[in-house]
Amino acid sequence: MNEEKQRHRRRMQRHKTVVDAAVARATEERGIIIVLTGNGKGKSSSGFGMVARALGHGFKIGIVQFIKGSFSTGEETFFRRFPEEVQYHVMGTGFTWETQDKDKDIAAAEVTWTQAETLLNDPDIALVLLDELNIVLKLRYLPIERVLETLAKRPPQQHVVITGRAAPQALIEVADTVTEMNVIKHAFQAGIKAQKGIEL
Amino acid sequence: MNEEKQRHRRRMQRHKTVVDAAVARATEERGIIIVLTGNGKGKSSSGFGMVARALGHGFKIGIVQFIKGSFSTGEETFFRRFPEEVQYHVMGTGFTWETQDKDKDIAAAEVTWTQAETLLNDPDIALVLLDELNIVLKLRYLPIERVLETLAKRPPQQHVVITGRAAPQALIEVADTVTEMNVIKHAFQAGIKAQKGIEL
Repeated sequence: MNEEKQRHRRRMQRHKTVVDAAVARATEERGIIIVLTGNGKGKSSSGFGMVARALGHGFKIGIVQFIKGSFSTGEETFFRRFPEEVQYHVMGTGFTWETQDKDKDIAAAEVTWTQAETLLNDPDIALVLLDELNIVLKLRYLPIERVLETLAKRPPQQHVVITGRAAPQALIEVADTVTEMNVIKHAFQAGIKAQKGIEL
Repeated sequence: MNEEKQRHRRRMQRHKTVVDAAVARATEERGIIIVLTGNGKGKSSSGFGMVARALGHGFKIGIVQFIKGSFSTGEETFFRRFPEEVQYHVMGTGFTWETQDKDKDIAAAEVTWTQAETLLNDPDIALVLLDELNIVLKLRYLPIERVLETLAKRPPQQHVVITGRAAPQALIEVADTVTEMNVIKHAFQAGIKAQKGIEL
């Protein structure tokens, strides 16, 4: 083996020691809260990818889509194919700038949150995706205290994924994993239409 | 209607004007390249969420997983359920700190890239996910020129999603949409084990 290859092997051996030690330290097993926030593309799709992953393990899933929903999207069509494994709820009022009616939006958010609460009380549901909940909280259409209380009382092994720009600080504090997604560039800004099958 | 409600309505009407104008400007329709990079959790799962979305529209998909793959993951188990719609390839050598053998890693990357090229030449494939390709490029296990050339020559309506930390600048330049995912916090750092069904 030449010197460069040996260097590579030694570097990788050191890296493996670090990785293995971190894995050995991480022993706690419980449901976690993941928050996906920021302005970049990929928050909701990341949540839906975690749903796919959990389905691969045979888990039961709950999905609640806030805000979005006046048009049917690809992910909804797809995950509704698995009614035995996926419970799917959509707040059907569309974007807030389409309804232009705050009372109607708040009433819809309340009803949709009740559906989320049922999932967050059910120990048979391994993963709950609360898509765009952050937007609802930011607009104060739901009291954050009610959301935090329900999250705290959920079954201990249940995972929750919450998406949407501008996650409130109080939610970030109780979350276990938080990713901020930032726009480096976006096709839409360059005049490219939102594309079926990748953005819709 | 009281004053506060009218204010809300006027604000939302103005916002709708801005949104509608931006939508009207975005008229170009073509396949786009999306790059998901940064250190935060959510890059691969976002790619897999886009796969689910595309499947909802009845599109055909190609998935190539680089680097990962010495253990089977939830997403692989799940998407292999749809062999008519999803072509799934995995570079089976595992993480680079597990093999500790650069020649073996490079040979595996070459073989796996050949599978990616076949997908990137096939106009029937609407979306190609190249999961963790950025890592392979960063380690120089594949020449970036070869990757850029294949991307440039692909069918014009085909979408490509490329994930992995440390995306090379040359790739960011040719991409249409780029999101950088940053860690705000991570459960693993707090001693919580990687959780089946959400991280595996």
